[in-house]
This record gives sequence, structure tokens and C-alpha cells, in this order.
Amino acid sequence: MSGKGALSGTEVATHNSRASCWIIVHGKVYDVTDFLDEHPGGSKIILKYAGKDATCEYEPIHPPNAISDNLPPEKCLGPVDMGTVKRVEIKITDQEKARLGRLQLRPPLDEILNLHDFEAIAKLVMPEKAWAYYSSAADDEITHRENHAAYHRIWFRPRILRDMTHVDWSTRILGHRSSMPVYITATALGKLGHPDGELNLTRAAAKHGVIQMIPTLASCSLDDLMDAAQPGQVQFLQLYVNKDRQVTRRIVQHAEKRGIKALFITVDAPQLGRREKDMRMKFDAEDPDEVTKSGGEVDRSQGAAKAITGFIDPGLSWKDIPWFKSITKMPLILKGVQCWEDALEAYDQNLAGVVLSNHGGRQLDFARSGIEVLVEVVEKFKEKRGITFPNPRFQLFVDGGVRRATDVLKAVALGATSVGIGRPFLYAFSAYGTEGVDKALQILHDEFEMNLRLIGAQTIADVVPSMVDATNIHSHVVAVPGDRLYDSNYESMQHARLRETTRAKM
Amino acid sequence: MSGKGALSGTEVATHNSRASCWIIVHGKVYDVTDFLDEHPGGSKIILKYAGKDATCEYEPIHPPNAISDNLPPEKCLGPVDMGTVKRVEIKITDQEKARLGRLQLRPPLDEILNLHDFEAIAKLVMPEKAWAYYSSAADDEITHRENHAAYHRIWFRPRILRDMTHVDWSTRILGHRSSMPVYITATALGKLGHPDGELNLTRAAAKHGVIQMIPTLASCSLDDLMDAAQPGQVQFLQLYVNKDRQVTRRIVQHAEKRGIKALFITVDAPQLGRREKDMRMKFDAEDPDEVTKSGGEVDRSQGAAKAITGFIDPGLSWKDIPWFKSITKMPLILKGVQCWEDALEAYDQNLAGVVLSNHGGRQLDFARSGIEVLVEVVEKFKEKRGITFPNPRFQLFVDGGVRRATDVLKAVALGATSVGIGRPFLYAFSAYGTEGVDKALQILHDEFEMNLRLIGAQTIADVVPSMVDATNIHSHVVAVPGDRLYDSNYESMQHARLRETTRAKM
Amino acid sequence: MSGKGALSGTEVATHNSRASCWIIVHGKVYDVTDFLDEHPGGSKIILKYAGKDATCEYEPIHPPNAISDNLPPEKCLGPVDMGTVKRVEIKITDQEKARLGRLQLRPPLDEILNLHDFEAIAKLVMPEKAWAYYSSAADDEITHRENHAAYHRIWFRPRILRDMTHVDWSTRILGHRSSMPVYITATALGKLGHPDGELNLTRAAAKHGVIQMIPTLASCSLDDLMDAAQPGQVQFLQLYVNKDRQVTRRIVQHAEKRGIKALFITVDAPQLGRREKDMRMKFDAEDPDEVTKSGGEVDRSQGAAKAITGFIDPGLSWKDIPWFKSITKMPLILKGVQCWEDALEAYDQNLAGVVLSNHGGRQLDFARSGIEVLVEVVEKFKEKRGITFPNPRFQLFVDGGVRRATDVLKAVALGATSVGIGRPFLYAFSAYGTEGVDKALQILHDEFEMNLRLIGAQTIADVVPSMVDATNIHSHVVAVPGDRLYDSNYESMQHARLRETTRAKM
Amino acid sequence: MSGKGALSGTEVATHNSRASCWIIVHGKVYDVTDFLDEHPGGSKIILKYAGKDATCEYEPIHPPNAISDNLPPEKCLGPVDMGTVKRVEIKITDQEKARLGRLQLRPPLDEILNLHDFEAIAKLVMPEKAWAYYSSAADDEITHRENHAAYHRIWFRPRILRDMTHVDWSTRILGHRSSMPVYITATALGKLGHPDGELNLTRAAAKHGVIQMIPTLASCSLDDLMDAAQPGQVQFLQLYVNKDRQVTRRIVQHAEKRGIKALFITVDAPQLGRREKDMRMKFDAEDPDEVTKSGGEVDRSQGAAKAITGFIDPGLSWKDIPWFKSITKMPLILKGVQCWEDALEAYDQNLAGVVLSNHGGRQLDFARSGIEVLVEVVEKFKEKRGITFPNPRFQLFVDGGVRRATDVLKAVALGATSVGIGRPFLYAFSAYGTEGVDKALQILHDEFEMNLRLIGAQTIADVVPSMVDATNIHSHVVAVPGDRLYDSNYESMQHARLRETTRAKM
Repeated sequence: MSGKGALSGTEVATHNSRASCWIIVHGKVYDVTDFLDEHPGGSKIILKYAGKDATCEYEPIHPPNAISDNLPPEKCLGPVDMGTVKRVEIKITDQEKARLGRLQLRPPLDEILNLHDFEAIAKLVMPEKAWAYYSSAADDEITHRENHAAYHRIWFRPRILRDMTHVDWSTRILGHRSSMPVYITATALGKLGHPDGELNLTRAAAKHGVIQMIPTLASCSLDDLMDAAQPGQVQFLQLYVNKDRQVTRRIVQHAEKRGIKALFITVDAPQLGRREKDMRMKFDAEDPDEVTKSGGEVDRSQGAAKAITGFIDPGLSWKDIPWFKSITKMPLILKGVQCWEDALEAYDQNLAGVVLSNHGGRQLDFARSGIEVLVEVVEKFKEKRGITFPNPRFQLFVDGGVRRATDVLKAVALGATSVGIGRPFLYAFSAYGTEGVDKALQILHDEFEMNLRLIGAQTIADVVPSMVDATNIHSHVVAVPGDRLYDSNYESMQHARLRETTRAKM
Repeated sequence: MSGKGALSGTEVATHNSRASCWIIVHGKVYDVTDFLDEHPGGSKIILKYAGKDATCEYEPIHPPNAISDNLPPEKCLGPVDMGTVKRVEIKITDQEKARLGRLQLRPPLDEILNLHDFEAIAKLVMPEKAWAYYSSAADDEITHRENHAAYHRIWFRPRILRDMTHVDWSTRILGHRSSMPVYITATALGKLGHPDGELNLTRAAAKHGVIQMIPTLASCSLDDLMDAAQPGQVQFLQLYVNKDRQVTRRIVQHAEKRGIKALFITVDAPQLGRREKDMRMKFDAEDPDEVTKSGGEVDRSQGAAKAITGFIDPGLSWKDIPWFKSITKMPLILKGVQCWEDALEAYDQNLAGVVLSNHGGRQLDFARSGIEVLVEVVEKFKEKRGITFPNPRFQLFVDGGVRRATDVLKAVALGATSVGIGRPFLYAFSAYGTEGVDKALQILHDEFEMNLRLIGAQTIADVVPSMVDATNIHSHVVAVPGDRLYDSNYESMQHARLRETTRAKM
Repeated sequence: MSGKGALSGTEVATHNSRASCWIIVHGKVYDVTDFLDEHPGGSKIILKYAGKDATCEYEPIHPPNAISDNLPPEKCLGPVDMGTVKRVEIKITDQEKARLGRLQLRPPLDEILNLHDFEAIAKLVMPEKAWAYYSSAADDEITHRENHAAYHRIWFRPRILRDMTHVDWSTRILGHRSSMPVYITATALGKLGHPDGELNLTRAAAKHGVIQMIPTLASCSLDDLMDAAQPGQVQFLQLYVNKDRQVTRRIVQHAEKRGIKALFITVDAPQLGRREKDMRMKFDAEDPDEVTKSGGEVDRSQGAAKAITGFIDPGLSWKDIPWFKSITKMPLILKGVQCWEDALEAYDQNLAGVVLSNHGGRQLDFARSGIEVLVEVVEKFKEKRGITFPNPRFQLFVDGGVRRATDVLKAVALGATSVGIGRPFLYAFSAYGTEGVDKALQILHDEFEMNLRLIGAQTIADVVPSMVDATNIHSHVVAVPGDRLYDSNYESMQHARLRETTRAKM
Repeated sequence: MSGKGALSGTEVATHNSRASCWIIVHGKVYDVTDFLDEHPGGSKIILKYAGKDATCEYEPIHPPNAISDNLPPEKCLGPVDMGTVKRVEIKITDQEKARLGRLQLRPPLDEILNLHDFEAIAKLVMPEKAWAYYSSAADDEITHRENHAAYHRIWFRPRILRDMTHVDWSTRILGHRSSMPVYITATALGKLGHPDGELNLTRAAAKHGVIQMIPTLASCSLDDLMDAAQPGQVQFLQLYVNKDRQVTRRIVQHAEKRGIKALFITVDAPQLGRREKDMRMKFDAEDPDEVTKSGGEVDRSQGAAKAITGFIDPGLSWKDIPWFKSITKMPLILKGVQCWEDALEAYDQNLAGVVLSNHGGRQLDFARSGIEVLVEVVEKFKEKRGITFPNPRFQLFVDGGVRRATDVLKAVALGATSVGIGRPFLYAFSAYGTEGVDKALQILHDEFEMNLRLIGAQTIADVVPSMVDATNIHSHVVAVPGDRLYDSNYESMQHARLRETTRAKM
């Protein structure tokens, strides 16, 4: 009854221990016994599926080829006859039922008026743990919120009586046309939020002529995401550099061959940040984002941190830059630069640009916002090298905290070529799939049209520094702690009230 | 039974489709078939009344002559015999009944102590959608609230031991006497809040000797508002410039002939702002403020934005200024100037003044407040042209966020000739009709008398720059995001308590 | 049965109308018919008692001789036979019963740890309207709260390793010894809070060797308050200047003869401020603080404002200063100076000092705090006249918002001779009578002892400018309005929780 | 039946009055009659145990030898036969039962993710009065909270592309190796929180190679804490200087002989601060922390303050420094320095360093935070003496408000050698005993490893000033008081909502 040459589920089921641990993924059997202690997500989650089909667990949080990339070829024992494999039963909890109920009640997309709305809906309809993973940030999440707050310290100086009949918010990013000064930045594990994962982004990006930056830790494979692209659609690649440079070389050169147009090397993550909101979730074997943890039930003293550094190299340094230049012709951009000194070094090393970013607040708490660093960088480049921005030779990007086209225009006015938006698109597809991302981009288009007109700029090139007042950008104010006794004694003033209300109160 | 030459309701009723759409307004029949796609408020709202009497829908949100002004004469098919027209039934919802109940419970006017009170009462007694339209502002409404907050960064330096027996807060605005340094600024669609619409303002302005600026988008016609004026009563006109300059010429010259004393050209609205609070309301055909939307159910991709630009010209530019000078002798003032550069240009072009305004926060979010721009303008005019303010040759006006006479006096001390107040008067008549506006102006009089005495100024001319400290005006502070864990651990101090209270707690 | 020559209650009762209005106060009959329209509190409250005994209404809010001072002698019709006067029944409302119940539950005085505590208890046990009168302030009460908040912008730079075995916080005020750098400043209508009114202050001041400033609008007469003083006890007088300078001369010269040591002329009240919280209270004839209103049921158009200016002269000016010098040898101090220019003028006119004050926030809203003005004054006197503070020749006082000895020490370090405290003492006696004030002063003593030791100053003279950092004193910061959508999406971090708590929540 | 030479409980029980008061502590009888008025905690608490065994009351709040150190030898009357002593019954209140129940529900230690968590749990499981004692601070606790808040005004400028494979956060403190730039600072009365008191700290410090500063007011004796140390474990001593310098000499020389490595002389406590939150607790004889009060039921007029100064000398001054040098060779550090002038004096007097500290906010309210003073000190030392920090010859320490390794790294970047942490360790052992402190230190290790990598510093020496932006450190901002009327009128924006939610609301 079983297929020829295929293993039987019964046999696989006997390898269900730490001593011998086989698992099934996408119909193939893998012997992961020796890999248990190397698994970034810890051995526990694997052992739960020892001898069983782990596909549904594996699927949302790994690129399809993750397992084959990370195991020696001989550990793939070949196909299994799926008819003989006992199905893993998935029990739907009451919590999950309630969530699925809420999913049915999503408002129609035309009630979504801004990017905040996607987050509000996604928070209600996403799996709780996916929400925790996407929304969490480092330590006390001060930087995470500062990223957004910093934009509120920048105000417009709009111009009037300019002919605003035709406005055009398209621009060029690293030489490639973009319908707006925004790109979709790299965020990990898209399938946590939606079964199609990052494909949602690829499709909507195509429709709107914006550029997608594909993440190293995508749930979809690079090839799948590039296969899904439309002719002429531009994609960039975000890169976590592997300790094993050959793996990195393979990824980079494959990407270049496939047509990736620029390489964004992440430089702010020598170690993945602790995100306590995420860790606070009860992790058990059902937990799909175990892979992202550097703590939790994984006993840190047993080397989980070491495991993580198995695929992200904490030793990455300026010395590696020539090597990158040697393996690819793609423009190289450093993602995660946080002070002018490093931006200047990147410029002096003839890189193509930098992303002023703190990784969405997920790495170092009290790192400054990208938009604040932008002001410093522009000022110092003027002083040290006499150059101004935007500048095609060396482009400045910013990400983190952006929710409105006005945020983007502030960055552009201050010298950014373009701005990366991440979480809002995750929330858009988590709540509405591809249509959500489509709508999110449409909202941005509408906001750009409106706001270009209102600041008096016909094109992105007309959005100049004098259109903003950023003099407060470096002020990090913390109010003197309140006088609780005085304040509780103070009786607030009250408005006039309706007569009935008044009477009822007496 | 039907009147001679008049159409019958039965016949009109057959033209009830997109293919042939007739409507009745104020007893006349119009063929609007070709106009459907041009209607700024979209075709849907018209089609709902296809073949029917649309007067009660049309009334609160259009000037009486809007329909005849916008349709070719031949599209007016003549009178209908109203006896043959089926009445449109208006169902009073429970919500509306509750509102009418609250209206009965308004406190007597002598319990209204300040302008805030009108807003508090209006919020309770206005139709929900009228409230949404009046109170809404752009994007996250940051600028809307900043307009008021900015005044809180300005503090007084009052003088003492000056004879304050007689104080006089009257002044001159563009040469015309005003009983206070305040004018009623232009706000649209007054009939949403009260059946008499802007007439409430005209009447109260007459009584108190203040100047009313009549809006282009008034619910009442210019002629009605000017007919209602008392002899010698001064009125200004706010102008949205039409793409068809002949329409604008007609409006301007008619206004001048009727006796309008100054023309305030709106320059901050090449496109009408998105006001999401307003859009959030469920819009259906009953919705009276459809006209104000640039989005919502109106499918944007079908060109609603284009429709809006049908009557406000996004192409208005400095090049149009000579033309304005050629068609009228009225003083020209630009309304919506937001930086010193444009104010200086207006001065150099020999205009009569500028209103430093951001349209009540309804257009560009993160536009700075008028009062903040005032400080910048005065400083730069001194530096660039050596002139000081107030200045009869070129007058500075400010609007937005004003609630107290102290706010006005701050603006005057800093160089403004006068201050525009809008929403508070809308709320005053929405809650109490003309008597509300009368009371609002009386409150301002009382506050001016009091506060002139308290700052030590006998007249408006004595309100000088050294009477205020505005050194903080440009500070846009955003607190560092809170440390939620630390704060929730902190146990607040408590007062001594009554003995019983103490016992009960234990 | 009736007394000889005395009027009978029956006869008095017939004069119960506007046409002929007699009232009884302290056993005497007054014809107030012609005075009705002059009464600062309006005629309504008098008419309620027409033909009746008004003593219990009159008592708490007038000095005993107010009625004889304000009426021509012939209007006093002589004594009434009280046995024939129908008693005015006072109905105790449920609200009042509840209040009296709370009064029984006051915590013992040794549970009162700071001045805030008195306010917290007084708020609960005072008549609601007395609370409203004492606690209210001008307009939006911004200045009222700023008065306290301003101290929070000043921080200490304490010194160490100085011998703090003996510390001494006594000082001299205008040459008179005070046990602490604090005086009891003038506040009106003490009997609203406690039947003994300002006598509570006189007694406690005697016990603690502090100086009381007697208010013009005291509920007790000047003579009563001076009679109650201990031998050697120093008292000052606060003066509202009467339009009729002869009344003022009489008051001043009587005070000097009785031994008042200094005259504090109020210069910040050409018109009494509007206090809306107070006005918001429902005023009816029972209302005891009608006298304090300049609005409310009193029809303003009938001239209540004019009535108020009947006893406080808005025409008071620098020209009056020589006259004051001519009628008294007492040192003259201006109370209510709010900028350096006026302080300098007072100095140049050889006055004895100024109180930098905004009348407890009850007059002009957005007036700066006294402590802020102090910094400006000291700086400018140094610059313009080369003198420093404290300075016996010209003394600087500050009042408003003080709650802690640390507040006082900040003012002293910055140059103040002494600080006035008002409301906290009102609350102290309203809650606990004389013992409350005694305790309040004892708390201040304890705080002074402690804090002198902790800042490293043996005496008040050792409290020098370098002990404070007041560089932020002029910063008036208003946060950028919050981003409500972003903030409501943000999910706050949470602590570890007890296991049961955790389970219960799931 | 009773032991030989031992007193009988029956006899002791007869000395139960103020006239003759004996108590039993640790099996010995003491005649404390003459000491009653000298007891810092007042006589009442002693009299409650007159004639009885006071050990369980005495134990948690005194070092074992406190009683013998403070009484003349002849007052120790020798051992009592414990079999004859009536046991003091301790009634467990419902409140205490509930607390013990909560103690059972503590989450496992691996759910504790940060130092905040210990506080959250300790607050729930500690005796209420122990919590009040540990958590309370001076006056309005403004400085207490500012200590933490000040760190939020400092932001990172992290560096990238440095090889972070190996990071090392160990350092040297006064020449002694420490595994991190943190020491456990001195806090009093550890047995209030846990029966093992400060021993918990000694044990965990040993395990992690960090230095413990032993407090004068420890619940455990110096000898016990040093006996518990591991070979080579470094301990410092915090010293309150006794009025009787011979007592201090004895303590210091004993400590040096036992191997204490440095002496931290407290200079910010000439008088112990009032901590009102602590005083607010109902104190009765059961109250274990009576000793810490300087007020409350103890009648202040009877000299409690004098009693307190019985063991801490308010006369300590710079003149004592040579004497300290004469009695010990230990490095001398002043703890509680709060301005650059005193730090410079310490340097000029050749001391080994200073702790910039305000005693955890428990002494002078509105004292600045240590981290703020650090910036001032470093700047002035550069200016006045030309030296930079960290500096082995004169070391700067900071304590107060630290909760994260990022806080510590900010202090290190700004020049601190090391940072003292106090309350978090108290909460750690109050909730979890020694394991709690162990975990707290492990968390800090993890945070240091992570954050060194993220700021780009391989070692503590690489944490340099340019890695932080502290330009806002001196800003003490207090927001302008809110406009309550305006704010309550403002209707907040709302997100899109689920359909059902929407419907339910309508």
C-alpha cells in the first residue's frame, strides 16, 4: 500500500526521542538528532514532534528551504508515505474560536482610514502570540515608542500660492523608480500573521510600484517571493550575515543572480534583542515563535544565546566590507546606523547608503530614533564633507515609527531619500491579506497627494529643509515626577451642564 | 387641480434614475442628469432624491443660489405643482428624540460663564453629524489642539499702578471700527447647527459692533447675510477661488458692490483636508454633510478629489494676485499664511495683510499655530524690512484655538491687529441661536474689561510686546515615552483620611 | 416686655420690600432701602432678609463694622427688642448633615503630616461653598496651579560635611523677628471656614512667633484681631484702597495707631477677578459668598461691576504713592508686583519692598508665579542698580503655591526675605480651628529644621543662591497634543504576576 | 527546675513598668529602665515588652550586638531560664494570612524577566509595613522618582560593525575585581523583608563576583556578614558616624581588621529624613520598624529627633576627615555628595572617591539625581583640575533609580566607575531570598552582555562619553497645568472597530 522507496510513518514514529529523533517536513523525513542542540528555537519544540509530521509547526516560521540549508544532505532520509503518517490533530481552543469569530467581524476595508486602523483591527484578529511577536520591542520599549514620538517634534512650514494642480510624489530609490518615497522594509516571519506571509507584500508592492525589501528571516523563500514579482518589479534584500560566510556568499550571489537590486546589510543586531512582552507569553510546544526567543524556557545557561549566534555573526565588522564588495556588484547599504560617525565611515568606504534605524526599537532601548539621527548626519556631512542630501551618490534612509505621509515628508525634507515602513504593512496583511496592503498603500498615496498640495510642493524634489522646523528634534524631555498630594487636592473645573444632569448629581 | 404651466409631481417622479434624474428644490424642478458626476458631494446623495423633493436635504448645506449658479439656465425646468408632489417623510430616530430632549434641558444662558461652555452644551444638543463636521480636523488633530495649546506657552508680564478707571478695548480693523480686537471668522455650513445658520452671526455682530467675515461656503446667501446687516455694519468676505475665474469675478464684484469691505482669499486649501473623525461617522443618504467629504463612500478612484477641485482651484498662485487687484478695489488679505517668507511676499506685493492661520487645524496636520507663526513673522519683518506691528499699512491677523480674551491680548501684544474666532461662535448658535452668539460676545467684553485692567493697559494700543513672555513659543515638546513597569510599581502617596474612610478600607 | 426705646420686631417686619427695606444686624435696625443697589453682593440677598434678622447671613462675610462704615449714621434706626423678632429658621439640609458627620470623623491632628493634609480634610469637612470660595481662582486656574508647579522647576544643590548640630531658621522681616521665613498672608472671609475666622491665625501666630498680615476683607474687625494679639506680637495690614481716600486714610491711620508695623498695598486688583468655579456654584439667597461674585445671578448689565468698584479703586496709580507716604510712617510695600520694571520703580520711589505675587492665581490667568518673577527681579536689580538680595533696605517677598519648607528655602536662596502662605492656613483652621494652624506651623518648623540640615545651612543667611538650580524657572512647556490613535494601539508592558492572578485572567 | 545562675521568667515578669523595665533578648535579661528615653524608636515599643521576651520584635530590626553595644555592661543581668519564660503569642491576622497565601503563588523565578518584576512581586508578598519602609522616600517623593526618570533623559549613540564576538563587562572598583560595574549598596534592616536579611546579599554577591557594601544599620552583624563571605570576596562598609567617636573608631578598626576593603562615610544624613508614606502606616507596638521613625506616635516634643541624633552625628564635618585618616588605612569615600564643589573638596583632601547620591530620595526632596550631578562633576573637574573619568586615583560612584544595565552603561559612559543598586536587591530577596538576588544579578549579566554588543563596546573601557547624548540631563520640566475645560470638550479620535462592536454601541 505504501509508495515505493518511501519510508513508512510507522517506522518514523519509532524515532521519537533525544537518542534518535526524526521528523517529517513537507513529506520528507529528516534525522535531526545531532541538530537538537543547535536549533535556535531550542530542542524542546523539535522533540515534541519527534517521530511525527512537524510541517504545520515548521511552516509559518521557516523559509521552505531552511531545513535543507541547515542540515547536511545525508540527514534527509527521503520521502515518507504520507498515507501512513498519523495526522497531528490540532485542537482549536476557545480563545482561538473567539479570535476566528472576531475575524468575521472585521469592518469593510473602506472603513479603514489610516494605517493606525490596521493595527487596531490586527490586534483583535491576529493570534495573540503573533501580535506579541510583531508588536514587542526591547526592554521597556522606550525607543519603540520614541520612534513615533520623534516625528511629533517636527512641524511644517508650508508654502502657499504655488500651483498645486498637478502633484507628483514618485521618486527614485537607488536609481529605481518608486511611486512614493516609501519602501516596504524587511520584517521577519510573515506567516505568523497570514498564511501567505510576505507574498502579500510582493503582490501589493507590484500593484503600487513600490519596492519590497525581502527579509532574511522571511517565512517565504527568496525564490518564491521573486517568482511572485511582476516583470520589472524591484526588490531589495535584507541580510543577516551568517558566521559561515559561505552561506552568506551563497545567499547574496543567488539573490543577485535572481535580480535583487540592492543589499541591505543589518548591522544593529550582533545579538538579537530581548523582547520581554514576547517572552511574557506562556511558551509551550504549541508556540510558533519559539524561534525568535533568546530566553524563556530555553535555559540560557545551556547556550541558547550561543545557538542564536549560530546564524547571526556577532563578529561582523568593518573589515568585512571589502569582502562584500568582492562577492557582489549590488549596491551595499548598511541597515541600523545610529550616529553620524558610522554614517560617515560608510560614505568614506564608498557604500551606497545607510538606513538610520534602530530595528524598530527591538534591539537597544534608548537608541535614538532614525529621524533624529538623520538631522545629526545631514548636519555633520555638510560640516565634514561639504555634501547635502538627498544625494544620489550616498542615500540616506530612515525607518521606524512612521504612520502618516506627513512623517515621510518630514524625513524627505530633512534629507532622506525614502522611508521604510514595516509593522503597518504586517498589520495590514494580518488583518486583510494582500487587499490590506493594497489599501494601506492607497491610503499613503491619498495622503501624499493631499499633503504635497498642503505644504506647497509639486514634487518630492520640492520638499526642502526650510519646509520643516526640527529645532526640537534632540529634546528628550521627562517631566518632573508629579506632586500626587497637591494634584489630588486640586478640584478640576467643570463645564455648564444640562439641567437634568445637574439635578441628578445633587 | 395643478397650477398652470407647472410640472406635476407625478411626471417628475418618473425621472428617477441615473439615465434621467430630476429633482425638486424650493419648488422648482432641475434636470441634474449631466451634473451627477460633477457634484462635489457625489452622485449617490442626489440619486437618492431622484424624482423627489430634495429641499430639506439641500437646504442646510448649500447657499440658496448654489443650484442655479452651478447649472446652465436651461436645466431649470420651471416650477412644480407642490400639491402633486409626494412629501418626503422624515423619520425621527430614537437618537434624534433623545437629542431633542437634551435640547430642552439646556442651562439658562446666565449659567454660561465662558466660551468653553458653549462647546460643552453644543456637543450635547447638536445633531451628532453636525458636531462631527464642526469639531473634526486633519489627520490626528495634532495641529487642531496645538492651536489652543500654543497660547499656554505665552505668559503675561502685567503692569501695576496705572489708572484703570476707564479701559477701552475697541480697535480698528482695516480702518473699520470694532468694539473689540476680535472678528467672527468664516466657517462653513452654519445651518447644520441651527436653522438660521450664519444669520445668527450677522445679528449678534450688529448688536456688538464686531465684524463678520462671510464664508464662501455659507449656508445662507451673501445677499441674505448682507440684507440682514444693520446700517453701517461692516462685513468681510472669505473667498475660495473657483477654477472658473469668471465665477470668482462675479462673486467678488457683486460683494464689492453690495458693500463688503475686505476680501480674505483662502490660500491654505488647494485641496480640502481629510477629517477622519467626520469620515468615521456612518454616511448614508440622510447624511447632510456629504458635501464636505472628499472620501468615504464616494469611491475616490472615481474622481471625488477631482470633483472637489471643480470649485476650489488648486492652481491658484502668486500670479493671480494682479488679476485680483484688477477686479476689485477691496483690500486683499491672504488667509492661511504659515511662514514669514510668504507673509513678506504678500507685503512686497502690496496686499493689505495676512491671516496667520492653519484653517482651524483642518488642513495640514503639524502645521504650526498662527500665534507661533506671528512671532516669527514679526521678528523677520523687523529684520528684513524694519517695520513693526501692529501696522496700519499691512495688518497681521491670527486665528485658531482662541477661547479667552487673554488669548486675544497675547496675540495683540505680539503684533496682531485682531484675532479671528470661529468654532466658539458656531457652538454658541448651535446651542442657543443668536442669543448664544450675543452672550459669547458679552463674555468676551467682560473678559477684555477685566484683563485690560489686570495687565495694566487702558487701551489696545497699550498692549505692548513687553507685556508677554513668549520665549517658549517655538518649543514643541514630546515627553519621553513612560516607563510603564516602573510607574506601575510606584505606589502613590496618600492624604490623611477621615477615620471612617480609613476603617472601611481595612 | 419689650426694651425701652427699642423698636419692635413686628414693626421692622413691615419694612420688607424694595420700597422700604429694613434689616436687623447684631440687634440693631438699619434702613438699607437706598443702599440696595450699591450693595456689592447685589440687592437680592438683602431683600431676602427684608424686615428680618440678617445677622447669621451677615456675620461670616463682613467685618463687624462694615454696615456702619458703609451707611450714613442716620440709617441706623437703633436697637430692636430681640424678644419680639421672629427667629430666622435655619434648615439643616441633608448635605449639611452629611458634612457635620464628616466633621466628626476628622483624623486626630497627629495624623496630619504636611500642609497638603489640611487641604484634603478641609475639602471634606468645609461647607461646599466655602471650599469653592477659598479654592477657586481666575479663568482656567492655570496660574493658580502654576504657582505651585513653578517650585518643581527648582532643584537643590545641597552642601555636606558642615556642622549641623545647631540650626536656626528664624529671620527678620522688615526688621521684626520671625521664627521662620514665613508670614501668614492676607486672605478674605475667614469666618466662611470657621466661626472664629482670622482670630485663629492671630492666636497661632502668637504662639509660634510668626507675623500675621491682616486682610482688609477680614471677617473679623482689625481691632478684634489686634486686641487678640499677645504683647510684642507683630501684625501687618493688607490694604485695598478705597475710591474714597478718606476711608482709606482712616483705616491706615487707625491701623498705625493701633500698632500695625507695615502696610501692604494691594496693586494687582483694580478689578476683582472672575472665579468661575465659585460662580458655578448654585447661588441663591442662602449663599454666603455672594459678596465675592462679580457676576452670576447678579445681572451684570445692572452694574454689579460698578458696584464692586465702589470700594476698590481701579484708579490707584503711582501718583498715589506720595500721598500714602504723607499719611503714615509705616513701611509701604506693594503687594502684587509681577515684573522687574515695577519692582524697580517701587525701589526708586523708596518703598520698603514688594510682594511678587499674582493674588494666589485669583486675578489674571497666565500671570507668572511669584517665584519666577523673583528670579527676573534679582537679576535685573543686579544689572540696573548693582544691588543683591536679601536686602534690608528693599525687601522681596513672594507668595502663592507654597506647601513645603523646601519651597520657602528655594525662595530664600533666590533672594526672598520671606514667603507668604495663605490658603494652607485657611484650610488648617477650617478643619481644626486654631489647633490646626498651630500644627501647620509646627510642621513647617520641623521641615525647616530637617531641610536646613540637609542642604547644609546653619542659618537662613547661609541659604545662598548656589544652593539651588533655577535654570529651568522660565520654561513654560506644553506637550505636543497626544497621538490618540497610536497611543490606544500601544499595548502596555506588564509585570510578572502571581500564579493565581495569572490563571484567573486566562 | 530552672537553670543554674539563670534568672527566672517569673522574676523578670515583675519588672514590667517604666519604673523598672527588664526585657529578654536572645536568652539574656537586660535592665533598660534608664535607656527608655534614649531609645531611637521611642520607649513605647520597649514598654510593650517590659518583663517579657522581646527577641522576635528585636530581631528583624537590630544587629545582634546592638543592645550590648548601647548598654553599659552592668545592665546585662545575665541569662534567663527560657523554660520559665511565658512565650509571647503571635496572632496571625487575616491580612497576614492573605499575604502568606500570596507568597505561595509567586511565579517561578524563570518568569522574572527584569528587576522591575522583583518589585512587583515583593510588593504583593512582603509585609505591608516592610514594603512601606523600603519603598518610602522624603516629602513628596519627587527626588525618589526623579532618580529613575533622569536616566530617561540620556540616550545612546551606539557604534556598529565592531567585532562583538567576545564582550566583557567586568571591571575594577577601588582596585578590586568586579564581574560587572555594579555593587550592592547599603540598605538598612534587611530582616524586615526576609529572615536571613543581608546574608542573602552576601551569598549572591559571592556567587557572582560582585561587591557588597555592608550597612551600619544592617539587621545582621558585620561579623556574621563577613563570616558568610567566600575566600577573596570583597566587602565594603557604609558608615553612619556616631556622636561618640570612640564607637565609630571601634567599628571602623574592627571592620578593617576583619578585612573590609573600603569605608563609605554617609554625609547626606545629619538628620534622618521624614518618609511620610512610612509614617502614614498605623504604628502600634507590633510595628517592627518603629526604629526608623522620627515622628508618628512618638511625641516629637519629647525629643525623638534628639534621640535619633543620639547615634548619627549632625556635627560631622570636613574637620573630621583627618581623624578618619588617622584611624584607618582603608580608602575613604564620601557617600551622598550632591554638587561639584564638595566632590572637588573631597578630591583635594585626597579621599579615594565620592558616591554621587541622594540616599535613594529618602533625605532631601528636590535633591538632584546622582546621574545628573555626575555630569556636572565631570565637567567641573575637567575645568578646574584638568582630569577625566573614570579615574583610578579618584573614583566616582552613582546610586539611585537604576533598574537596567542600560542605566549603568549610561553612568559608566559619563565617567562613573561603578553604580550602586539597593532597593531592587532588597525586593529580590524579600520575594525569593538568596535565589532572588542570584537571579537579579544573572539578569544584569544578560543585559550587560546584550547591551555591550548593541552599543558596540567590547569592554567597559570602550564605553565612552560619545556613546551617550546627555544634553538634556539638566532639564527639569514641569508641564503648564492642563486646560481642563478645553480638554474635556475635546473628543478623542477613534479607530475603526469590529462590526459587532460598532453595532452594539449604536
